Amino acid sequence: MQKRKTTRFAPLEITSTEFKKLGHDVVGQISRHLAKIQKIKVTTAPSPRQVRKLLRSGGLPRKGMAPTKLLKETSDMLFKNSLFNGHPRFWGYISGSPSPLGILGDFLASSVNPNVGAFILSPVATEIELQTVRWIAEMIGYPTDCGGILVSGGNMANFVCFLAARKAKLAWDVRAQGFKGSQGKRFWIYTSAETHTWIQKAADLFGFGTDSIRWIPVDGDLRMDLGALRRQIMDDVASGDVPLMVIGTAGSVGTGAIDPLGEIATVCREHSLWFHVDGAYGALAAVLPDAPDDLRALSMADSVAVDPHKWLYTPLEAGCALVRKQDDLVGAFSYHPPYYKFEGKEGDEPTNFYERGLQNSRGFRALKVWLTLRQVGREGYEKMISDDIQLARILHAKVTSHPELQAFTQSLSITTFRYVPSDLNVGDQNAEKYLNALNEEILGHLQRGGEAFCSNTLIRGKFVLRACIVNFRTTTEDIEALPDIVVRIGKKIDKKLRTKESGN
Amino acid sequence: MQKRKTTRFAPLEITSTEFKKLGHDVVGQISRHLAKIQKIKVTTAPSPRQVRKLLRSGGLPRKGMAPTKLLKETSDMLFKNSLFNGHPRFWGYISGSPSPLGILGDFLASSVNPNVGAFILSPVATEIELQTVRWIAEMIGYPTDCGGILVSGGNMANFVCFLAARKAKLAWDVRAQGFKGSQGKRFWIYTSAETHTWIQKAADLFGFGTDSIRWIPVDGDLRMDLGALRRQIMDDVASGDVPLMVIGTAGSVGTGAIDPLGEIATVCREHSLWFHVDGAYGALAAVLPDAPDDLRALSMADSVAVDPHKWLYTPLEAGCALVRKQDDLVGAFSYHPPYYKFEGKEGDEPTNFYERGLQNSRGFRALKVWLTLRQVGREGYEKMISDDIQLARILHAKVTSHPELQAFTQSLSITTFRYVPSDLNVGDQNAEKYLNALNEEILGHLQRGGEAFCSNTLIRGKFVLRACIVNFRTTTEDIEALPDIVVRIGKKIDKKLRTKESGN
Repeated sequence: MQKRKTTRFAPLEITSTEFKKLGHDVVGQISRHLAKIQKIKVTTAPSPRQVRKLLRSGGLPRKGMAPTKLLKETSDMLFKNSLFNGHPRFWGYISGSPSPLGILGDFLASSVNPNVGAFILSPVATEIELQTVRWIAEMIGYPTDCGGILVSGGNMANFVCFLAARKAKLAWDVRAQGFKGSQGKRFWIYTSAETHTWIQKAADLFGFGTDSIRWIPVDGDLRMDLGALRRQIMDDVASGDVPLMVIGTAGSVGTGAIDPLGEIATVCREHSLWFHVDGAYGALAAVLPDAPDDLRALSMADSVAVDPHKWLYTPLEAGCALVRKQDDLVGAFSYHPPYYKFEGKEGDEPTNFYERGLQNSRGFRALKVWLTLRQVGREGYEKMISDDIQLARILHAKVTSHPELQAFTQSLSITTFRYVPSDLNVGDQNAEKYLNALNEEILGHLQRGGEAFCSNTLIRGKFVLRACIVNFRTTTEDIEALPDIVVRIGKKIDKKLRTKESGN
Repeated sequence: MQKRKTTRFAPLEITSTEFKKLGHDVVGQISRHLAKIQKIKVTTAPSPRQVRKLLRSGGLPRKGMAPTKLLKETSDMLFKNSLFNGHPRFWGYISGSPSPLGILGDFLASSVNPNVGAFILSPVATEIELQTVRWIAEMIGYPTDCGGILVSGGNMANFVCFLAARKAKLAWDVRAQGFKGSQGKRFWIYTSAETHTWIQKAADLFGFGTDSIRWIPVDGDLRMDLGALRRQIMDDVASGDVPLMVIGTAGSVGTGAIDPLGEIATVCREHSLWFHVDGAYGALAAVLPDAPDDLRALSMADSVAVDPHKWLYTPLEAGCALVRKQDDLVGAFSYHPPYYKFEGKEGDEPTNFYERGLQNSRGFRALKVWLTLRQVGREGYEKMISDDIQLARILHAKVTSHPELQAFTQSLSITTFRYVPSDLNVGDQNAEKYLNALNEEILGHLQRGGEAFCSNTLIRGKFVLRACIVNFRTTTEDIEALPDIVVRIGKKIDKKLRTKESGN
């Protein structure tokens, strides 16, 4: 290209030299943060009002400001006032500790900025995403010639699979006719109450309504009751309704329970139902040589959701939808507007991801996943996932042996428990109510205190604390510290609540 | 926290010192890329097969590899084989040139890694997103107390608004009952054929089916024909059907046409219809002091979609949904699973974004948007957006005066045109067919050649080239070079096609 004669003043432009300086500043900030992540609090838990005080209030400024100062102020504010799921003592919900190389992957992805909706706009990125999808399928023992796509997270991954099922299983052209084509029939979706709320959102958003969900009871281990599933399907068929799909969970969000996937697969085959597995959290444990058979059976599913930003430890956002038959995936999403000219040469057709999901323009979220996969390989993940599970078991043992803690469940890398004061009369009719209130308040203190971060779940009406270790920074020491922290907070709150009660 | 006694070997961990070194490497690569972005090709347009040769084939490696080497190889591969929408001569589809500060924003966001689904997990990030939403609303003249959320892009932003409309306008509890509650009624969604394909996807995915779309004809300027809209609504009401919403477009993807939004608002008020504006591309031009009245009228919409990764020039992904009434947004998406304990103090309640959209876990995409907004302020955007439009007008003038180019449309920053050989007998009955084939082939050459990148659209069956300037790097010189490039390619292909024809 010839020498450029004209220039354009664009306030957003930053010269290469300036970018280098700014980039080094940010790298410095992040590396200093990484150096001390073990020593700081998980969170300082500011209130909304406190945060708003930090932000410049009012409307959009008319004038801009110098990037150096802006970046410095912003990173200071963020590193001082955030919750860090990369902290070794973060065990809330299910958020992976973000891999440092994944962070650099996001940086690189953003700088290249490919639109991974169409091959022509993102040649390398598209092929990297395809390879990433194949590798994830391989890790969990799923056919690598499946259709797949990376999405924002678990909700979206499950939605993509759900929509593939909807298109494949409804007998009319639902994409054109919507539910007008249903001719008044009732359709049923089977799952257990342990399923994540994505299922309510999916049934709601995609036209069935949440009333179309058959909530199958669970057994003592919170796994779907197969007898109940079979009976419900037969009843529904007998009523002239149309059973459509069964959703099994591989690692429930509450307790990490794994449904009896092999048996569910059999039921689905018998009744020609779509078998979807929500493995957003747990599917990746199928990489372990000693993975339970139930987990391995996800290989029989028609579709699987699995989240790299959980147990592949990538930064947010990275979910992944896998659909056994490529055509089922493309069939649910493909549209060809007249101005799209994306065809390639015969025998070397490009993949255009806009045909495989809800989005049109798409970022390059595959890069962070692909980089972390390559950095540690299959063996690296076997080690880290297995260590996380081991830590959850250590916690369970510690909790079980503690006189003032009651252990509930242990599955995959989730352990649940609660604080029970040693002098509480557990036979008292109000004891359970009191324990729920007590443990809920303990959780609040724990979450705001910043020493360690758990979340909670409800197990048969009992409010329990829940540690989910998807964190390659957590050590035995970290996890062994948790029981004493909880008991210390528990004693304090128990005393406060009882004083209040006797004062009333 | 006391000194740590135990350690954990986690293959993904990277020390602070190592991170600094790797970070500097990446910063160096990106800054070298930025230094030469004006001099390289827009794309080298490799084929899928060529890209696959660059990638290590086969399954997931068992062993990992050293991050330094991995990052170097990866960034080399990406910078040598990608299409760069940050290149001054990229004018395809609608992709903003990514702001360098936005790239650093993504880097910082990924390192803090907040889950912006719940305030407790992302205190600063949540408030920054809320402020970003308010600032975007302010820029386009929309009420700043609206509900809003950042999403992956235009499809998702339009989907969120569409779902808010569905919930607000259907008379039964559609979230619970789905379309079973419709009692056989027919519902209609009105829009013009110039609307982006998100509308087909939305009607399809959310239960109506694409048959529920009333495609209203357009006038000579490709804007929705109001008379036709009114007549269609009245006919449908007379038939006992239920009109639900009208979708106006503020900057159509094909030509940048803006529907008569003020008049559509009036029609919607008269018939109590939801008025949604797809302003993914064009809404941000409402920031200009001399914005057309039609564009300003988007302030009357019940909901608006607008994409920061288009005309705010942020890296992908960043779309934004605005819904006039907060309750309509929350009402369409909120679910409270029993294990969510996100309540705050009275009078200082936290915002939890999982209640405002389809996602549950969410990344911090607001940061790049907020940073670029602060870097240049309102004035900076007024200048850059206005300059982009000016450049499109310059292109239109150049094309109009060129003897072998035919100008079609000019609106916002989109100009459309085609190559017409000077010796072609345009009266010939096959002329139009020939011109379509010719221009389609020109586009392919242009896109693969890497000198400049346009895309195309169809205008009343005519295949035209289309330059959309959402690029703060494009100069007058860049845009003035385009006509000659197209004509040079055009002459070559015209000759080839005619030789082929006469040879047949």
